[in-house]
Amino acid sequence: MNGLNIISATIITIGDELLIGQTIDTNSAWMASALNKIGINIEKRIAIGDNWNQIWDCLEKENQTASIVLITGGLGPTSDDITKPLLCKFFNGKMIVDDAALANVKNIFENILKRPLLERNLKQAEVPDTCSVIQNERGTAPGMWFEKNNTIFVSMPGVPHEMKGMMSNYVIPALKKRFELKPIVHRTLLTAGIGESFLAEMLIDFEKNLPEHIKLAYLPNYGMVRLRLSANMQQSDEKTIDHEFEQLKAIVKDHIVADKDINIQEAISGIFIEKNLTLSIAESCTGGYISHLLTSIPGSSRFFLGGVVSYANEVKRDLLDVPQTLIETHGAVSIQTVEKMAEGVRKKTGSDISLATSGVMGPGGGSDEKPVGFVCVAMSTANKTISTTFQFRFDRTRNIELTAVQALNFMRKNME
Amino acid sequence: MNGLNIISATIITIGDELLIGQTIDTNSAWMASALNKIGINIEKRIAIGDNWNQIWDCLEKENQTASIVLITGGLGPTSDDITKPLLCKFFNGKMIVDDAALANVKNIFENILKRPLLERNLKQAEVPDTCSVIQNERGTAPGMWFEKNNTIFVSMPGVPHEMKGMMSNYVIPALKKRFELKPIVHRTLLTAGIGESFLAEMLIDFEKNLPEHIKLAYLPNYGMVRLRLSANMQQSDEKTIDHEFEQLKAIVKDHIVADKDINIQEAISGIFIEKNLTLSIAESCTGGYISHLLTSIPGSSRFFLGGVVSYANEVKRDLLDVPQTLIETHGAVSIQTVEKMAEGVRKKTGSDISLATSGVMGPGGGSDEKPVGFVCVAMSTANKTISTTFQFRFDRTRNIELTAVQALNFMRKNME
Repeated sequence: MNGLNIISATIITIGDELLIGQTIDTNSAWMASALNKIGINIEKRIAIGDNWNQIWDCLEKENQTASIVLITGGLGPTSDDITKPLLCKFFNGKMIVDDAALANVKNIFENILKRPLLERNLKQAEVPDTCSVIQNERGTAPGMWFEKNNTIFVSMPGVPHEMKGMMSNYVIPALKKRFELKPIVHRTLLTAGIGESFLAEMLIDFEKNLPEHIKLAYLPNYGMVRLRLSANMQQSDEKTIDHEFEQLKAIVKDHIVADKDINIQEAISGIFIEKNLTLSIAESCTGGYISHLLTSIPGSSRFFLGGVVSYANEVKRDLLDVPQTLIETHGAVSIQTVEKMAEGVRKKTGSDISLATSGVMGPGGGSDEKPVGFVCVAMSTANKTISTTFQFRFDRTRNIELTAVQALNFMRKNME
Repeated sequence: MNGLNIISATIITIGDELLIGQTIDTNSAWMASALNKIGINIEKRIAIGDNWNQIWDCLEKENQTASIVLITGGLGPTSDDITKPLLCKFFNGKMIVDDAALANVKNIFENILKRPLLERNLKQAEVPDTCSVIQNERGTAPGMWFEKNNTIFVSMPGVPHEMKGMMSNYVIPALKKRFELKPIVHRTLLTAGIGESFLAEMLIDFEKNLPEHIKLAYLPNYGMVRLRLSANMQQSDEKTIDHEFEQLKAIVKDHIVADKDINIQEAISGIFIEKNLTLSIAESCTGGYISHLLTSIPGSSRFFLGGVVSYANEVKRDLLDVPQTLIETHGAVSIQTVEKMAEGVRKKTGSDISLATSGVMGPGGGSDEKPVGFVCVAMSTANKTISTTFQFRFDRTRNIELTAVQALNFMRKNME
């Protein structure tokens, strides 16, 4: 393998649960992002079931084309987990007990789980003698590193935090050592309030004049669009992509939320921390989701005080001081109610700024006047309380997500 | 194709964003689940980039083996979207304007977006003349149905709600009409409080005696394990799988949370609605996530009143009446504080039952006495307030999720 080529990898995830829709594959995205950062390009991701012939065929095919094959799943202690015996045969090995893996399994059962060790758990310490063992610091199943015909195969458990531990502590450093890698660099712009095709119209000339090795992608999500420039540092350099990124920013400047790859809640977090302001939230239709988005960010306690999930009208009245008569006159989903919710939660928590939501998320509860997807949002400060309405469509989950993102963006715009 | 064979499908998702980890693929799980329900088996899922040669190779390979190939993505109006011209060439067609698709695009711009129609949007109404057009009721890009050498290829947009609309209204009914399908039937048991390997020990004899055409899978998630029996109704019948399921339930009866494929929040929702009880929640460390899980369920307003996200200590004091001295003496993360939080939110909202959480989610904030992953949970009713502690590990996101699931399960067990 030539260290100067762009190194490509294939990700194979094994497990029936991935093929019947019971599990959403979040591992692949994490692995792709981690490999991308060190300059390894993911060419393909394949998900297959716990099926001997299919796994075998898949390994054979990838052995012909891929430099690196990362495999997750199928290493559990139960009989539907066939990956390890298959790899043993595929790489012409025989099973042996790995002492370090055995000590790890024993330690986990004796000192952490405090449960008796079963025969089937002991089996987790067995590995083919044709692999290098990757110890699992977060679980019982060891990882395995094989090589065959110039292809590296790494098998890891499908449990996300176990896989992530092995990748971070062992696989990524080992791949960096093995190949002469040049990272793929991205520059990402988060925009709001303008559709994908309108951005594309604004960027016709920009796209035409982009150097061939820099690629522009449009990534729409929740009514916002990310614009991403990508370049492999083998063909380009930081200065060139930074120059193009500045051009891009100048063209779409009126629509920029953030000039890095963050989401709206991270942008909000940055603004509040920088301005040393505090926030509280009163959520009716979003039912805690906005608070969850913000508190998912480490360190959010620096600006987020908390708030009230006022799902029932009585909670709006008793915890947020929204007058009963106002709810009766205008309805729980109204500009009047949501403004009082925002004022109530700000006063109760003593925050500098507050945000409030009330709407009809569906599938039930819609009317001609206030159909499913109708949402009222308000923000309040010591000086002003302002509000807006949105009309979304479709299903409940999407309406909750869209409301959260658009409410946060409404607040962001009105903080400037 | 023989209608009596088990029909298998491949899902291909196209888009660079899937290979650099910027997007988590939720479409595939939804499609797999929808196809599985009508008896179509997913053999493989492949994700590839916006790369002409790779897409072409992939289509050629699948044309040799798959009966059905479902393709999503790459149909947008921007220049990185190459799927449509590629399909046109692959299926030897030429581009023509589809009148119905054109009317749809015009309608969306004129009446819904109220924006001027651009040339590039008009192009979305063009399709190869070798396909049957699938109209898009939720967006501008039409779907396309091709057939070649006994393989059906369906191309759909990658936007989840657009794809779902096409699948539900057109693709699924058309596949049901075309093939003589027998559904794959699953029976799922949700268990808690026992590990995968201990369940497997209990089920050794059961597994040995299972009819060959019924498969048992162990699906661990968030400290709970789902046990799933699967059978294709061509080789089995409902009576046989129901019989085996009853046996399974009898063996693991002490660990059952639910005897259907629901999650813990749906189980909680069912219990509250059946018992006609109301719930409120005070969340510190989970920051709104438990409320979000519950309010994601349509109709949750029948039992969920709301609550308080008491992230700051002042909010615990001012909105939940937790005495300041108690927080100072025992700390915000303590049995004493979390019990007062539960009592406070129950009294303030007037709910029958309440649940409260406080813990150290990480990465910062841990101490020797209360390390990252240490969590206190309490529930309160008119008669009693009880609490427990957990020690989780690892990262913030996982700690928040584990706390939510285990707190709900703690409440469920203590409601019996």
